[in-house]
Amino acid sequence: MKVTSHDVAERAGVSRATVSMVLNGSTAVSISTQTRERVLRAAAELGYRPNSAARMLVRGDTETIGLVATDPALLNVDGFVPQLLYGISRVNREHGYGVLLEVVDKGGAPNVYTDLVRSRRIDGMIVLNPASNDQALRGLIEDGYPLVLLGSVGHPNEHSVNFSNRRAIQSAVDHLVGLGHRRIGHIGFSAMGNIATDRRLAAYRDSLASHGLEPEPDLVGFAHHSAESGFAAMRELLARAQRPPTAILAGNDTIALGIMAAIEAAGLRVPEDIAVIGFDDLPIAAYTRPALTTIHNPAIEQGEAAARMLIRLLNREVIERPRVVFGTELVIRASSGGRVG
Amino acid sequence: MKVTSHDVAERAGVSRATVSMVLNGSTAVSISTQTRERVLRAAAELGYRPNSAARMLVRGDTETIGLVATDPALLNVDGFVPQLLYGISRVNREHGYGVLLEVVDKGGAPNVYTDLVRSRRIDGMIVLNPASNDQALRGLIEDGYPLVLLGSVGHPNEHSVNFSNRRAIQSAVDHLVGLGHRRIGHIGFSAMGNIATDRRLAAYRDSLASHGLEPEPDLVGFAHHSAESGFAAMRELLARAQRPPTAILAGNDTIALGIMAAIEAAGLRVPEDIAVIGFDDLPIAAYTRPALTTIHNPAIEQGEAAARMLIRLLNREVIERPRVVFGTELVIRASSGGRVG
Repeated sequence: MKVTSHDVAERAGVSRATVSMVLNGSTAVSISTQTRERVLRAAAELGYRPNSAARMLVRGDTETIGLVATDPALLNVDGFVPQLLYGISRVNREHGYGVLLEVVDKGGAPNVYTDLVRSRRIDGMIVLNPASNDQALRGLIEDGYPLVLLGSVGHPNEHSVNFSNRRAIQSAVDHLVGLGHRRIGHIGFSAMGNIATDRRLAAYRDSLASHGLEPEPDLVGFAHHSAESGFAAMRELLARAQRPPTAILAGNDTIALGIMAAIEAAGLRVPEDIAVIGFDDLPIAAYTRPALTTIHNPAIEQGEAAARMLIRLLNREVIERPRVVFGTELVIRASSGGRVG
Repeated sequence: MKVTSHDVAERAGVSRATVSMVLNGSTAVSISTQTRERVLRAAAELGYRPNSAARMLVRGDTETIGLVATDPALLNVDGFVPQLLYGISRVNREHGYGVLLEVVDKGGAPNVYTDLVRSRRIDGMIVLNPASNDQALRGLIEDGYPLVLLGSVGHPNEHSVNFSNRRAIQSAVDHLVGLGHRRIGHIGFSAMGNIATDRRLAAYRDSLASHGLEPEPDLVGFAHHSAESGFAAMRELLARAQRPPTAILAGNDTIALGIMAAIEAAGLRVPEDIAVIGFDDLPIAAYTRPALTTIHNPAIEQGEAAARMLIRLLNREVIERPRVVFGTELVIRASSGGRVG
C-alpha cells in the first residue's frame, strides 16, 4: 500500500502542511529543528517518497542534474573523464540528486543544451570540456542558467572548475630543460580547437621561450585521445622530423602510452633516446613500463567541486569563487629519465 | 516565447488532440502516416517539446532509464565500464531516452533499486555487474520490472547481456599450455563474491583440469580492479609461492598492468620468466609494453545490446533472446611470449 504524506503527518504528530514544508525544504514558516527531525524520521521509517512527477510540477524541481560530455571519445578511451564522473556522482548522491548523462557526438547535436533545459528533466547542468566557441552554451551562461563548466569558455559570467595548464606544462618543461633537454616536442591529446589542447600548446611554447628555446613546428603533433592515436602521431612526427626530439610532452597519459610504444617500435628507447612526460596521472600511470612521469591532475576532486558548486547554485547560495582553479603537480617517475647530453 | 501544442496543431492543420496522440505515440485512434508526418514536421520546425513533467503524470513515462553501477571502483579505475556506458548512452540517445546514472557504494545503499523505481524518475533499469545474491534486484526481476543486467544473477526470468567467461578462459589456458606452461597462476580482478570473478576462477580451475593440471592454491590471488591492486596481489603471490608461476591469467587488463610491473620489480621479465594474459582488450592493451595478450570482450557492443533490449522491453515487444551471450576472442600479443621449457 502506498505511503502518503498523511501517514507521515500522523506518525510525526504534525499537520500535512508541516510535512510538506519540511520535505520541500520550505522556509516560508519557521519550523523547529525538533519538528523537522521528527518529520524526517517518520518519513524515513515509513519509506515515504513524495511523488517526483507531481513535485516537479509544483516546485519546478527535478532533483536531477544534467552532465554533458561533449565528445564520446572522452568517455570511451581516456581514463580522466570516468574519474570526473565518479566525483560528480558521489557528491550528487550525497545530496539526493540524480545525474542524467548526455554524451554528445561532435557536431552531432548542437541543441543538446537547450533541448536538455527545455525538457525540464534537470535543474542544472555540468558540461565537461566545453568548446570555447560554443554559442548555445554561452547563451545559457548569459541567461543565468545554473551551469558549471569542467573546463572554461572564458566567459566573464561562467561558473567553472578547472586546473592550471600553464603552471603544469611549465613545471614539466623546467624538469626536462634541467635534465639537459633542448629538443622538446609536444603531441596534443586532440586536434586544435579544444580549449585544453590549445592552452597546453600555448603553454608549451611559452615555457620553451622562458628558457630561450624556439619551438620547432616539426616537433609538434596532434593525437585524438586514444593510445592508438598517440602511437600514430608519434610515428608520423618521427618520420617528419629532420632530427628526432630528445623529449616529448604528451597531451595526456593515454596518448603517452601510444607515444612510448611508437618510440620503441622505431627502435629507440624511453627514456634513454626520448624522454616522455604525460598529463593527468591516471591510476595506471605508475604501472606503465617505464613508469610514467606525468602531471598529477586531481580528477575526482574536480568532479566533486563542480557538483558542489552546482548544488550551491541550485540552492541560491552565494558563490564566492565562481572560478575554481586546481593546482597540479609534476610526479617524476622513470619515463623522463636522467640527465642527457 | 514558449511553443505550445496549439502552435503545432495550427501549423500542421490538425486538432490539438491529434497532435497529442501523435506525439505520445497513442494508437487509440488510427491516424494516417501523412498526418503523423505533418505533425512531427511541424513540431520539429517549431522546436516544440512537450512538458516532460506533465507527460510523466499522464503517461507514467519519464523517457529516462536508470543505469546502476554497483561498485564505484568499476567507474573509477577500470576502462571497461566507461565503454559499456558509452554504448548504452549512444543507443539511448538514438531512441530519445536519457540515462540516469547511479553509482552505488558497496554495501552502502541496499535500497538503491527500489528507491530508484519508487522515485518515478525512470522507466526501466540497466544494472552493471550485479551480485548474484542481491535480493532487492531478484525481487525486481520477479516483479517483472523492466530491467536488463550487464552480467547475470542466474535468475530464470532475468534479461541479461553477458559474455562467455568459460570459453574465454579456456582459450587462454589452451594457449599457455600449448606454449609449454604448466605452472599457471590466476589473479582475480576483485575479491570472490563478484559473479564474474567467481566464474573466471571456476573456469580457470576447469580449464587446467581439462589439461590434467592441478590448480595450486598458492598460485591464486585476488586484486581489486586497479593496477595498484594487481601489483600488490602479484607481489604477495610471488612472496608466498614456493616456486613462482611461469604464467599468470589476470582477471582484467588493468590489473594485468600492475602484475607486469610487479614481475619487473621482482627482477623477472615478461614474458621470458612469467607470461601474462589479460581480460577485456581495453583500447590501451595493444600499447602496453610488452603489448598485452588478452581476451577481446566487446564492451561497447554489450552496452548497446543491453540498451536495445531494455527499450524493447519498455515498448512491450517480444524479446526472443532474453539472455544474450557475446563471444570473446583471444588476441595474442607479446606478453604471453613464445614456447617455454
